[in-house]
Amino acid sequence: MTRFALTLEFDGGPFFGLQRQENGPSVQQSVEEAAQRITGKDVTLHSAGRTDSGVHALAMRSHLDIEKPFEPFRLMEALNAHLRPEPVAVTHCEAKPDDWHARFSCIGRSYEYRIRNRRAPLTLEKGRAWHIARPLDADAMDEAAQALVGQHDFTTFRSVHCQSASPEKTLGRLDVSREGDAVLIRAAARSFLHHQVRSMVGCLALVGQGQWRVEQMQEALEARDRAALGLNAPPEGLYFVAARYPDEEQEI
Amino acid sequence: MTRFALTLEFDGGPFFGLQRQENGPSVQQSVEEAAQRITGKDVTLHSAGRTDSGVHALAMRSHLDIEKPFEPFRLMEALNAHLRPEPVAVTHCEAKPDDWHARFSCIGRSYEYRIRNRRAPLTLEKGRAWHIARPLDADAMDEAAQALVGQHDFTTFRSVHCQSASPEKTLGRLDVSREGDAVLIRAAARSFLHHQVRSMVGCLALVGQGQWRVEQMQEALEARDRAALGLNAPPEGLYFVAARYPDEEQEI
Repeated sequence: MTRFALTLEFDGGPFFGLQRQENGPSVQQSVEEAAQRITGKDVTLHSAGRTDSGVHALAMRSHLDIEKPFEPFRLMEALNAHLRPEPVAVTHCEAKPDDWHARFSCIGRSYEYRIRNRRAPLTLEKGRAWHIARPLDADAMDEAAQALVGQHDFTTFRSVHCQSASPEKTLGRLDVSREGDAVLIRAAARSFLHHQVRSMVGCLALVGQGQWRVEQMQEALEARDRAALGLNAPPEGLYFVAARYPDEEQEI
Repeated sequence: MTRFALTLEFDGGPFFGLQRQENGPSVQQSVEEAAQRITGKDVTLHSAGRTDSGVHALAMRSHLDIEKPFEPFRLMEALNAHLRPEPVAVTHCEAKPDDWHARFSCIGRSYEYRIRNRRAPLTLEKGRAWHIARPLDADAMDEAAQALVGQHDFTTFRSVHCQSASPEKTLGRLDVSREGDAVLIRAAARSFLHHQVRSMVGCLALVGQGQWRVEQMQEALEARDRAALGLNAPPEGLYFVAARYPDEEQEI
């Protein structure tokens, strides 16, 4: 048996999320079925994050165990051949020790959230960004974001369906920057609560539009109450961009 | 009557090109029909370029004449409302003098061509870039590209359907650069022949894959023969990115 780490890129649009669902197609099901067609065996995919319906990934990290010997490049090619024409691709594949786990070994997750801030509807980025027509003050958003960085009880920014044992998380980074008519939000933490990034982004958008004062972000956090949430941002602007593992950290 | 300059962004995927076609939907038809629904009059759209089926635009420049007085911002909003849900958007609208012409006043056109160079199939960029799995040498492509810069007879790189009076054009810029697994080609000229950018990119891809020597680009140009063309690149990687007009040039 060999444990293979996969890097997955996918368009979340047609999926009911990464994790297997009873009610519709999932990225997990697509990759597992591709692996089953190659190996003739049941295969389970484990992943660093559990992205929601409509959320994209540039580099989700996952793993699966395969009995048959495989050269990693050949496995990647075979998986991609069987995944066609679904919008899921394996961009990297490598063998890992048996105790390497895509979810439990992961020590850092990064997301990007993309907003297009203009009057005109989206064309090429439809389904790839959140369209906000009212002008956003990205500097005010960035200032408000800093209230959330650090270790806090994030109950306000947590889905009622969240299965995490504790609402305490340590947010390492939450930056907002403007590039032309795009407003980009970058978030990094060891781990996130369910809907945490979208909930934080939704409230930042209220600050950006002047509907919330900058200080209201701090107040919402301190409320520790889901009812204090201003807005949950839509999934189509969210991208899982990177996962960190101890064995891959650069030596200094 | 007022002449309005429009900046158009569109996903070329569902269209048979920018220009009106008898056999299928066009960007021109969509915009003209939106303008007709607003004004109740026949309206003709003129554009800086005539992009082919599947070619995208980030900022196509066009104009139309409207009898009824309109505030430019209101016209943009009304056009966008009537264009929904088609993937065409008016991102800017302004009044211009009656002798300003989107096509005939234009003194420069720029295109970008996007290649994703990796083994894995495309997901989020499917239909938005040319996928080339074999490794490309972007430095060799850039070197070969320089043979085409300047004033030349571009017969080799011209569609048999090209309606231009002369095959002579002056190519101002043709640059190739790599950004990760993306290879970007930027082309600028006063004007281009039909299929010229895609024909140049197709041959550059042959150089990048080592199927053509760098010098073969020069030889293909000098052949002045369509039969010397190596390959016409597919439309989905091509974007019309900018048009220049004398009245909009920055004063120095």
